[in-house]
Amino acid sequence: MTLKRLLLVSNSTLYGGGYLEHCQDQIQKFLGGQVKRVLFIPYALQDRDNYAKTARQKFQSLGYALDSIHEAADPVESVLTAEAIFIGGGNTFRLLKALYDNNLIQVIRKKVIEDGIPYIGSSAGTNVATVSINTTNDMPIVYPPSLQALGFVPFNINPHYLDPNANSKHMGVCSIFIIIRMNGQ
Amino acid sequence: MTLKRLLLVSNSTLYGGGYLEHCQDQIQKFLGGQVKRVLFIPYALQDRDNYAKTARQKFQSLGYALDSIHEAADPVESVLTAEAIFIGGGNTFRLLKALYDNNLIQVIRKKVIEDGIPYIGSSAGTNVATVSINTTNDMPIVYPPSLQALGFVPFNINPHYLDPNANSKHMGVCSIFIIIRMNGQ
Repeated sequence: MTLKRLLLVSNSTLYGGGYLEHCQDQIQKFLGGQVKRVLFIPYALQDRDNYAKTARQKFQSLGYALDSIHEAADPVESVLTAEAIFIGGGNTFRLLKALYDNNLIQVIRKKVIEDGIPYIGSSAGTNVATVSINTTNDMPIVYPPSLQALGFVPFNINPHYLDPNANSKHMGVCSIFIIIRMNGQ
Repeated sequence: MTLKRLLLVSNSTLYGGGYLEHCQDQIQKFLGGQVKRVLFIPYALQDRDNYAKTARQKFQSLGYALDSIHEAADPVESVLTAEAIFIGGGNTFRLLKALYDNNLIQVIRKKVIEDGIPYIGSSAGTNVATVSINTTNDMPIVYPPSLQALGFVPFNINPHYLDPNANSKHMGVCSIFIIIRMNGQ
């Protein structure tokens, strides 16, 4: 029985702050001193190079090296050897389709559920950590082969829920962190 | 070569008004005096009985009888004999899935594109009149077998586009009507 280690963040950027600035303390606390390298999955955005650059700068500043899966010769292999995984935000449909297209669903599940490596998700990366993407606000710009997601937690999350009459600068909820440690399924 | 007759409405209800009140003049002008019965497709909402009741009351008040497809013994046959079709709003994924599940895509296309019967869509009913539902704001609460829609027009519409900093009571655009008459493909 392995402990699942999940840090599920609503937004990569909080209004007025820098990239992952609002949750950098939680990231460091969560990854701790043992993790040296983080595998980044930038599939939710179109421009993977730039996205990886932004994420790499931030993680390096926190003391972690970052490998982007889109630069790996074999994406499945890069997951199998990952010490920790971070999936960033963007479009949830694009992200989930790319996870399926690259045959990553089962292997990411194995690493997080069986091997217990730390998983960080932000926005779309939090959506795909749940049972399914049936509650995303994102537009279905592509058609994934299923709406079923990684299923690390037995419920769905909507990280950008907006009240109908919202009149604020934040995306629904100000910024939520859900840190879940639960026994492997 | 047949003329396509489409009345695509953004919302069934305009803020402060009654059901289809804001576009009732356009509906009457569009259907004219020849149409006596309208076939209503309530699939976008869960409660089809109540939805049909609401729609029937409104269309009767405008001088048209209304048959709801969910009460028909054979949905395909009801489309084949329809004088006019009205697809109402709700969840676009639920609507499109039900259209596929009931084998209605091709037969509705035939009636509207080849036979030239009038088609009224509102909200989700407008979304499915376009190429695909890839630009809907709705949540993917169910998984249709495709995102391709009826394809009456060679573009997509987002009837509920919201500005990021919207601070108004309307749903993105106040209320748009697009009346399109184009030659059958």
